[in-house]
Amino acid sequence: MSSRLRAVVLLSGGLDSATTLALAAGTGFECYALSFDYGQRHRRELDAARQLAAALGATRHEIIGFDLRRFGGSALTADIAVPRDRREAELGAGIPVTYVPARNTIFLSFALAWAETLGSSDIYIGVNVLDSSGYPDCRAAYIDAFERMANLATKAGVEGQLLTIHTPLIRMSKAEIVETAISRAVPLELTWSCYEPQPDGAACGRCDACVLRRRGFAEAGHTDPLRYA
Amino acid sequence: MSSRLRAVVLLSGGLDSATTLALAAGTGFECYALSFDYGQRHRRELDAARQLAAALGATRHEIIGFDLRRFGGSALTADIAVPRDRREAELGAGIPVTYVPARNTIFLSFALAWAETLGSSDIYIGVNVLDSSGYPDCRAAYIDAFERMANLATKAGVEGQLLTIHTPLIRMSKAEIVETAISRAVPLELTWSCYEPQPDGAACGRCDACVLRRRGFAEAGHTDPLRYA
Repeated sequence: MSSRLRAVVLLSGGLDSATTLALAAGTGFECYALSFDYGQRHRRELDAARQLAAALGATRHEIIGFDLRRFGGSALTADIAVPRDRREAELGAGIPVTYVPARNTIFLSFALAWAETLGSSDIYIGVNVLDSSGYPDCRAAYIDAFERMANLATKAGVEGQLLTIHTPLIRMSKAEIVETAISRAVPLELTWSCYEPQPDGAACGRCDACVLRRRGFAEAGHTDPLRYA
Repeated sequence: MSSRLRAVVLLSGGLDSATTLALAAGTGFECYALSFDYGQRHRRELDAARQLAAALGATRHEIIGFDLRRFGGSALTADIAVPRDRREAELGAGIPVTYVPARNTIFLSFALAWAETLGSSDIYIGVNVLDSSGYPDCRAAYIDAFERMANLATKAGVEGQLLTIHTPLIRMSKAEIVETAISRAVPLELTWSCYEPQPDGAACGRCDACVLRRRGFAEAGHTDPLRYA
């Protein structure tokens, strides 16, 4: 076994999770990147995740598959239209239809399982509250509650090896995330944020994820290398 | 939509989850049974779950597939021998190798997702502490922590529709579960508990699950309709 401590890093393939992986690796962790093929309409993000895991030096990358379309209930996993061109006030108000029920809870649960089998006490997730789309499972109170639950759930927790859920981006603006990504040499051209990939491979530029990303790059004064429709 | 309240019921196909489903249905809930094909060596339990869901009147039964063998770490999902013929003192001491890391957390997370899309505030799980194999994620403190987390995780929770995780068996002995199952007309011959199904279709009779089940039937003074090797 390596002498370095291991961390499980949730990696969607977007800007935030790629930056989180770079931060975890920069802290010295041996990183185990974890992605999910859950029936998302922007499945293209998984190609991004694969390339980012390799580029950022993850020791291993696993993609766990399951079908959240069986439950539906979200614009990302059912035939519900993804909103376009929403303004700042709309982005901050309420929970949007792109919210996927309990998604982060499912993702963190798998991360917890892998952490336990790896003997790891550290999970990284790139959630972000200040500049988010109002998802309930991106808030600090939620993450704290998950951490408390996790430490009662596992053999490691029972035996005193307490788990920490790291959320290094949680209070950053999207502009700060862009700046952090650049300072950590994240290959921005490999990251994918858009919910509605276009047939020609471009990002739509109009979904909430694109709107937030583009505003972040603009505020940070950097050029987004992605091609937009 | 039906006028009855909906509950999501975790259904492994074993005696405990079948009894839990019967209790939820008896309380008046419209039941949505949820099972998992996760790479368990006793995959035969899923046939039991299908038959039990139908027999006990579940409105719908979903089986979500994913591969926990990718992580390993348990006798149920890796090439680790299932212990046999353990005595009472051994059954109560420590966490056995059949513990699957974070399994109930993963199961409850999917139940949470489905509950939210169904507009349900009630999840049933047949965990049991007094007579269990020492799994950390079967204890009341764990369930309470999951419930607190869940109410911060979801849109429903944020909007005040609080979720309850029901654990009607949590303090029952296995004999009491057998008696409850019989009083609720659970078709015991359809339930499956064994971790090591035999090639001829019999239960092994020697794994922890068989040992606990047989002791429960003996203490309750009932005949177990299952065929043992």
